[in-house]
Amino acid sequence: MKKIIIASTSTLHNGNYLDYLFPTLKKHFEGVKNLLFIPYARPSGLTHTEYTQKVSEAFTSLNINVKGIHEFENPIEAIEKAEAIFTGGGNTFVLVNELYRNNILNTLEKVVKSGTPYLGTSAGSNICGLTVGTTNDMPVVYPPSFRALGLVSFNINPHYLDPDTNSKHMGETRETRIKEFHFYNPQPVLGLREGSWLEVSGNSIKLKGDLTARLFKQNENPIEIETETELGNLK
Amino acid sequence: MKKIIIASTSTLHNGNYLDYLFPTLKKHFEGVKNLLFIPYARPSGLTHTEYTQKVSEAFTSLNINVKGIHEFENPIEAIEKAEAIFTGGGNTFVLVNELYRNNILNTLEKVVKSGTPYLGTSAGSNICGLTVGTTNDMPVVYPPSFRALGLVSFNINPHYLDPDTNSKHMGETRETRIKEFHFYNPQPVLGLREGSWLEVSGNSIKLKGDLTARLFKQNENPIEIETETELGNLK
Repeated sequence: MKKIIIASTSTLHNGNYLDYLFPTLKKHFEGVKNLLFIPYARPSGLTHTEYTQKVSEAFTSLNINVKGIHEFENPIEAIEKAEAIFTGGGNTFVLVNELYRNNILNTLEKVVKSGTPYLGTSAGSNICGLTVGTTNDMPVVYPPSFRALGLVSFNINPHYLDPDTNSKHMGETRETRIKEFHFYNPQPVLGLREGSWLEVSGNSIKLKGDLTARLFKQNENPIEIETETELGNLK
Repeated sequence: MKKIIIASTSTLHNGNYLDYLFPTLKKHFEGVKNLLFIPYARPSGLTHTEYTQKVSEAFTSLNINVKGIHEFENPIEAIEKAEAIFTGGGNTFVLVNELYRNNILNTLEKVVKSGTPYLGTSAGSNICGLTVGTTNDMPVVYPPSFRALGLVSFNINPHYLDPDTNSKHMGETRETRIKEFHFYNPQPVLGLREGSWLEVSGNSIKLKGDLTARLFKQNENPIEIETETELGNLK
């Protein structure tokens, strides 16, 4: 049975790394002693070792031991044997490129769909959708494909940001960008605001956190989704 | 001799389409009767016809006749025979994808390097750099490559936006994103603020407009570049 947390961000403004999620993660990772961390997205260019160290310190309070996938000789085997998996944020293109380069995308999809508890934040949440075509990140590397894990039957837009009506900046708003996505892609896009996450439990997908989320469907006006809404049928 | 305008944006806040550039364009397109427009970037999903119509209206005041590349049976021949060329803004991934699909990237590079006057705004400016790896756009389609025209020996980041120190949003700043780019790519990146443009004349590349631009080099701290600075040696 699928057991997945898809979080918009790892860190809230004025908060510490992952702290707003700890009550949820305590239950999500109940009984887990060892967590496999995927540091491939390298936020601000952090090395895999530096990033894993940061995550390891955060999980001390849950008494969970963290090991980075780069520490294993065989990353496919590491995923197959993992008790639980966390993919951290950073650059989605770098992350996806490394998943393909190490040939682990399919294995990751298989084990998470089979029940290995998974946590994604930001880029690690982007890859839970059908494609990474709704990432906010800069395309700093060219991955072999934009296809992602498809753990949910729609796309995720993390760090969703409402249009700033006071802005004089003429770059596209997030809403305009997602509208452009729907000229070329049929799947719904869920804009997850910071502090929101999805809790996937078997066939159930529930919006969690205090905020509403913004749901974009092709050829429809976007709507606000209340927290605790069941999204298991969204596709 | 190269004759190119690379503009951050088509439209300033409270301005009309292209109007702040008209004094420059009047000189840039002096003697030009017919302009070839490349509408492939489709901002907000505008059709090629709608987008070309908008551009055509704007160029009436310069007495220049505008025809969209989609109106020609043979787009390669249209580029080869063009008196002058304008590529408009929109989604950079969509634009690049269409340039490859129509097999015109190399021809476009050749004629502009040979002297056909060119104007790019936003996405149309992004493609003037070595790659489109520093676009701000959402990857709504998967192009065959991120390689671009290389009309200048660096990358462009249009609509450059300074970090908002009051923001509580935890998504990456533009500066962080460009720093990540430099972990994987060696070329300099020029952040062009709205209202700035580059004027390329032969081997000379000059920053124009009232504002400074932000120059990012690999392994160096970013610096501000004054208007009228010569950037012909930047690579």
